[in-house]
Amino acid sequence: DLVTLSSDFFVEKHLAGQHWLITAGPTREAIDPVRYISNHSSGKMGYAIAHAALRAGAKVTLISGPVTITPPVGCHIINVESAAEMHQQALEHVKEATTFVACAAVADYRVANVAQEKIKKSNDAMQLDLIKNHDIVADIAQLADKPFIVGFAAETQNVEQYARGKLMRKNLDLIAANDVAKAGQGFNSDDNALTLFSAVDKTEIPLASKHIVAKKLVSLINEHYQQRYRT
Amino acid sequence: DLVTLSSDFFVEKHLAGQHWLITAGPTREAIDPVRYISNHSSGKMGYAIAHAALRAGAKVTLISGPVTITPPVGCHIINVESAAEMHQQALEHVKEATTFVACAAVADYRVANVAQEKIKKSNDAMQLDLIKNHDIVADIAQLADKPFIVGFAAETQNVEQYARGKLMRKNLDLIAANDVAKAGQGFNSDDNALTLFSAVDKTEIPLASKHIVAKKLVSLINEHYQQRYRT
Repeated sequence: DLVTLSSDFFVEKHLAGQHWLITAGPTREAIDPVRYISNHSSGKMGYAIAHAALRAGAKVTLISGPVTITPPVGCHIINVESAAEMHQQALEHVKEATTFVACAAVADYRVANVAQEKIKKSNDAMQLDLIKNHDIVADIAQLADKPFIVGFAAETQNVEQYARGKLMRKNLDLIAANDVAKAGQGFNSDDNALTLFSAVDKTEIPLASKHIVAKKLVSLINEHYQQRYRT
Repeated sequence: DLVTLSSDFFVEKHLAGQHWLITAGPTREAIDPVRYISNHSSGKMGYAIAHAALRAGAKVTLISGPVTITPPVGCHIINVESAAEMHQQALEHVKEATTFVACAAVADYRVANVAQEKIKKSNDAMQLDLIKNHDIVADIAQLADKPFIVGFAAETQNVEQYARGKLMRKNLDLIAANDVAKAGQGFNSDDNALTLFSAVDKTEIPLASKHIVAKKLVSLINEHYQQRYRT
């Protein structure tokens, strides 16, 4: 009926006027022209957040590492490979963003000396020297004119402790934490369960499809955002 | 007409009675529960060879690393992640094979000490200690009851020199070499160009779709196989 329809319409467009910048997927750090270091992020969670934010009326810019899923219709998609490329694109596009959701599983380290030709195996052992990448979400949180910032923490142990540490240390507004060691959720799954931490509270989003979790997460982020900027 | 049809039929089933074991795709070598080392192999070439061998009447067992393509109907597919898993499966299934085509881009090295929990970044630099994996195609070439063996060499320089070296050193029957540094062919492409080396000759398969290249390659492999075993 009309009441349901208009209520749906109201819920759907609660992000009108906002511009969300979202990172998703893994990054790939080259070892040589054929080999790389990466991680098991599928991009599904970040893409689901982009989809939910679009449905709720936001403009969405999605910076994505290499994944095999199709971006939601209507978002501005920017494809990158490495953490350095993602860092550069994020800093460029954050200027127009009201909200930044750092969902990508960005490589913490890159290879110090990327080989220009395929490395030939010869020795029984070899060492790979790694150096730290720039921290995208921390660098954006240092900007004078920073947006509302939501980080992610994918952990295999001590989830709350690491998540709260990251929230404070990196100066984030919110952090969404999940235990990727639990079966049926996280990197290789269609489902997820998250705990959203602010400096003062936490909210559980129980195990469900990543699309349902994304919709709830987008609503919760917006509630915190409204609390921050509209009161 | 009937002549064309029967000639097609004859060409199509020239592998009747043969059993091809094919490896395809990359492998993933775990660093910790979320991170890994891999390579840009898409699996397209190996899957196209499996398809062409099936069409030509062979039984086909396909051992595949993580890829995003669908295996051809009618093959026995075995999915693996790491080089160690691929090695184990290949040695188990080679017993029934008449021909082994080692098309997978197997990691030469694995991480010496795989972390059980996600590694926390702390230092500005870190080192990854790698140790050599077993060489699948070389180990199979050492078997007393070995099949006809076709290796692959994906190189970025000195292609013929590396390919011929690998052919002799690993005791292969044939090696198919391609220059993955050339634009429009190799790992990330739908097209490929190969040079097939035996100990005494070489045959070029010019740039074409991986399906056309696979069909020609399968025919050439069979010609060498027939020469070896049927005369």
